Amino acid sequence: MARLVVRSFAISLDGFSAAPGQSQKEPFGKNGLRLMSWVFATKHFNAMYGRPGGAEGTDNDFMAKADENIGASIMGRRMFGPPPDANDKETWKGWWGENPPYHHPVFVLTHERKAPLPMEGGTSFTFVNDGIEAALDMAFAAAKGKDVRLAGGAATVRQYLKAGLIDELHLVQVPQLFGQGERIFEDLAGVERGYECVSFTPSKAVAHLRIVKKGG
Amino acid sequence: MARLVVRSFAISLDGFSAAPGQSQKEPFGKNGLRLMSWVFATKHFNAMYGRPGGAEGTDNDFMAKADENIGASIMGRRMFGPPPDANDKETWKGWWGENPPYHHPVFVLTHERKAPLPMEGGTSFTFVNDGIEAALDMAFAAAKGKDVRLAGGAATVRQYLKAGLIDELHLVQVPQLFGQGERIFEDLAGVERGYECVSFTPSKAVAHLRIVKKGG
Repeated sequence: MARLVVRSFAISLDGFSAAPGQSQKEPFGKNGLRLMSWVFATKHFNAMYGRPGGAEGTDNDFMAKADENIGASIMGRRMFGPPPDANDKETWKGWWGENPPYHHPVFVLTHERKAPLPMEGGTSFTFVNDGIEAALDMAFAAAKGKDVRLAGGAATVRQYLKAGLIDELHLVQVPQLFGQGERIFEDLAGVERGYECVSFTPSKAVAHLRIVKKGG
Repeated sequence: MARLVVRSFAISLDGFSAAPGQSQKEPFGKNGLRLMSWVFATKHFNAMYGRPGGAEGTDNDFMAKADENIGASIMGRRMFGPPPDANDKETWKGWWGENPPYHHPVFVLTHERKAPLPMEGGTSFTFVNDGIEAALDMAFAAAKGKDVRLAGGAATVRQYLKAGLIDELHLVQVPQLFGQGERIFEDLAGVERGYECVSFTPSKAVAHLRIVKKGG
């Protein structure tokens, strides 16, 4: 059965997935991109952008697996953008250029009414105004039997986790201190009854954790 | 120069150091003792209580080093106890029996006025009513040039961290989902300007992180 999964989702040692101050130059907030250093170092990430080089090993294996059997993605409005300082808000098409690295339908949760954006390489952005369950239904239909990946950000993951809709959550704990920002694990009392951590796989740089629905 | 250090301080993957529902049977709250499984498995912990066995390796090394060069400890009132369900509140002497594993002066932050408790094996409990800085002064004086260890719990560590008084914080991220409880990293915006994570040392069971004062 198709599942809703979160993959390679990075959090700082104090639990934050983005810092305050998102801008065009800093999509993860002020000094927030250090959450992604382990990603940038992998061979898989470099290959996604047609570049040679990058490391193999644990982090690369997780990155490569993250894209397997995914037929559609869901993301929140802040992950799609635009950031507050963008000059091209009206024509904004996401952070990823004309050929985004999704190559499948992406559903963006937003209160804004916007026409779908077909992109190059098989990616399309569809803007969903009627909530997380409607987006999930649309994504499962579009994924045609494959899994749906919940891309982020933290507030969106938290909403789906609270509703018990996530089947598997792969977290990446990054040894960086943020001090402030957006968390997944906030106002989630009771989540421990529905979910449990079933694996802990550290690399040299980060710790990979797999959290799944109990009895799932 | 003598420093204030936190050692082997465990937090769940969602950032909690204790669960709600502290009781005599469960000092770390309901189902909270799983935060300490990695400790119970070490040779050093078993030796502390005169028992044979236990594992060597990364976790054991950190546990053994945690007690080195410590001349006094500070702890919060909830860490000392008694828990809400204790029948012996008036005569409570902590969780650790007649010969606690400190073997040096321990300063307990509390609003309660209580006479000092001399224990066996060199441990004494002194109750401090006038705040974290007074307790720190007393602990440094008692430690006679050695370091002072801030034992916990989370609220106490947070207070000292917020005040910039901690020199080194050794955190242990445990792959367990708590969902609720007490956090260190709450209401600490700005801590990232004063502190940074300088090492990440995973074992098979947990991740050890060392956080130090910048420029310290």
